[in-house]
Amino acid sequence: MSTLQITGGRVLRPNLAVERADVLADRETGRIVEVGDTAVGEETLDAEGCLVVPGLVNTHCHVAMTLLRGYADDKPLDAWLQEDIWPTEAAFDAEDVRAGARLGLVEMLKNGVTTFADMYFHVPEVAAAVEEAGLRARLGHGVVTVGKDDADARADFEEGLAVARELDGAADGRIRTALMPHSLTTVDADLLETYVARAREAGVPVHYHANETEDEVDPIVSERGVRPLEFADDLGMLESGDFIAHAVHVDETEIELLADREVGVAHCPASNMKLASGIAPVQELLDAGVTVGIGTDGPASNNDLDVFDELRDAAMVGKLAAEDASAVPAEAVVRSATERGAELLGFDAGRIQTGALADLAVVDLEAPHLTPEHDLVSHLAYAVRGSDVRHTVVGGEVLVRDREVLSLEEGAVRREAQRHVDAIIQEE
Amino acid sequence: MSTLQITGGRVLRPNLAVERADVLADRETGRIVEVGDTAVGEETLDAEGCLVVPGLVNTHCHVAMTLLRGYADDKPLDAWLQEDIWPTEAAFDAEDVRAGARLGLVEMLKNGVTTFADMYFHVPEVAAAVEEAGLRARLGHGVVTVGKDDADARADFEEGLAVARELDGAADGRIRTALMPHSLTTVDADLLETYVARAREAGVPVHYHANETEDEVDPIVSERGVRPLEFADDLGMLESGDFIAHAVHVDETEIELLADREVGVAHCPASNMKLASGIAPVQELLDAGVTVGIGTDGPASNNDLDVFDELRDAAMVGKLAAEDASAVPAEAVVRSATERGAELLGFDAGRIQTGALADLAVVDLEAPHLTPEHDLVSHLAYAVRGSDVRHTVVGGEVLVRDREVLSLEEGAVRREAQRHVDAIIQEE
Repeated sequence: MSTLQITGGRVLRPNLAVERADVLADRETGRIVEVGDTAVGEETLDAEGCLVVPGLVNTHCHVAMTLLRGYADDKPLDAWLQEDIWPTEAAFDAEDVRAGARLGLVEMLKNGVTTFADMYFHVPEVAAAVEEAGLRARLGHGVVTVGKDDADARADFEEGLAVARELDGAADGRIRTALMPHSLTTVDADLLETYVARAREAGVPVHYHANETEDEVDPIVSERGVRPLEFADDLGMLESGDFIAHAVHVDETEIELLADREVGVAHCPASNMKLASGIAPVQELLDAGVTVGIGTDGPASNNDLDVFDELRDAAMVGKLAAEDASAVPAEAVVRSATERGAELLGFDAGRIQTGALADLAVVDLEAPHLTPEHDLVSHLAYAVRGSDVRHTVVGGEVLVRDREVLSLEEGAVRREAQRHVDAIIQEE
Repeated sequence: MSTLQITGGRVLRPNLAVERADVLADRETGRIVEVGDTAVGEETLDAEGCLVVPGLVNTHCHVAMTLLRGYADDKPLDAWLQEDIWPTEAAFDAEDVRAGARLGLVEMLKNGVTTFADMYFHVPEVAAAVEEAGLRARLGHGVVTVGKDDADARADFEEGLAVARELDGAADGRIRTALMPHSLTTVDADLLETYVARAREAGVPVHYHANETEDEVDPIVSERGVRPLEFADDLGMLESGDFIAHAVHVDETEIELLADREVGVAHCPASNMKLASGIAPVQELLDAGVTVGIGTDGPASNNDLDVFDELRDAAMVGKLAAEDASAVPAEAVVRSATERGAELLGFDAGRIQTGALADLAVVDLEAPHLTPEHDLVSHLAYAVRGSDVRHTVVGGEVLVRDREVLSLEEGAVRREAQRHVDAIIQEE
């Protein structure tokens, strides 16, 4: 047994209690084998003065969009996509996507993110970056059919299905997949029904943007006479294991439907604020028993991949939406970013417990903004930022040690990304 | 002339253009003497790979409340103040306030904050901490008369006035003051009128919480038949140089009044979200020509003192409030946190220009979350966090060098704050 011992720290347990404990991980199985006064591991990781927490889970992202961070801000979703983002993305080749993904993975690892969901194109490049960087991911090809003829539309779906089939289980199981049609308004309904059924045969779940803006809800309601998620249900797109992004504009019926179908929500508070999309009714979703994860969305609408920042946003804007300062408390967002997020993406992680995957972030508490210590769960929700993460571990492998990423070379990754951006902008 | 030269970086100019330049500061006058290819200074500060920006201004704080960071979260403003905050604060003695203030100053300096406004009690202790730490501040004693007899109420106002008179100009002019009645609903109206007039005679401005929650607006409207800021105007509390905190629930008349009277607003987005108070109409305030600064509010309702995080919140939640993704753009919040904030607090700072006070933050751009470089103003608003600040300078004095605070000893300050907290909690 090849083991990693995380020593000298305190540990956030699944009940959110904090206790003094070491964590022993078996690198062969990638799982936690002991939490407590452990036997000595072969490799040790110093957690003195630190809180060991489950690695954070980013449940909705377009990671290669790091290339467009700060490229076009302060514009509404529609104009932003059509005038800036889609035309520029059209110039991205496979190498661009790889470079953008690598940059985002370095950033996420330094922020303690160990697992993420990603919808993009050139997905094999994203998968290669994930394999190299060492994280876990649920990946898919973002299928868009609007403006395409039938052959091109089908070809895009075929690519989505092929990617989902071929990459599922890659990187020793660290990579899982989903069919990822972009949304209910950008993808043809007949094709959706056909290909979702084929995804079920292939055993992969479905992930898509839903109810993000009113502009997306209204046409479905007026043309079809049902709410978007009722329409999705008719198309077979609400089955256990599926998850949707956003759910900003959902009514009670839709919330019940999500709970009933066991379909989770990737809540993206920063992106929803930045694009003025609205505020998801997170407390109502939680009350109904919906599994809510936290997502950054793409770094062009955020503009970072710091899930700790997103926790804070989720708790804060959740109170605004509920008009109740006791809504979406610290405990809820910490669970959303860890155990619930892992559940949403179908990984047996997100909790520090014997038998769970050894995906961990070690947070340095010795900082003025984390002093004094009244309540460490409050600190995780409201005061910790990604830069407080000292080490990041996935499956017992140390990927970040003392803020240095070990699986990729940060400086080279940054320079490579900038070179790709310079070339793309010059071509325009 | 004793000089400091900040070398090798790029500089954010008052028009928000970024240019390659050195900055030369005269430590005797505390002012910038040259921006460009400067003569060599006696002391140098390396800004290679960095962006030199005006030091951030935190326009509303209760800094010693660091002691209550994470002490009671997820509760509405009223219950939170009455059940948790006020009873615990009642146990604070002068040494506690000094310890809490020192902790907050270390945190702010590391986050690139060079100037702040603070309303609290035991203000001479806050002033002593400011003198020692080296920042600039506008300080005042938070006067509360609700629940007090006339003699005690007057005594509190006398203390507020005495503090404002005696500390104004302290620490070689780095400390300025204001009369700081808590709010229009927690302070007796007759006494307000009397003591505001005396503040005018003493030449100090007035700062108070206003229109933070609906619970605070409604009684004034129903009892007096006017909006709170009309009432404030009647009491002589809206004069040029005054500034209010929050302004969440303001109507058009009140926005015009603020613009007309040249009274600025300290916008505290995180606190307003966390306490579910609502969202200030920042774009409307800006459109009307109101000077808007950014405030963290106290660290018990935030829970940190990272003004970069507040910029991001201000831009994001401002778009939500306006239901317009183009509202409260990056440029606006960067100006609010620098030049506008300094204007609000009455300091000749917040811009990198010959003649202005040499208050600067040097931001390290060599980080994955700040790559690539499309737009550095966007980065400042949406992606930079306090931990990216490498050096902080006030009046040409280096207070933080390579993330180490030079004016206070961080470890000792942290331990001292924790000791005070432990003693307070034990007494309860």
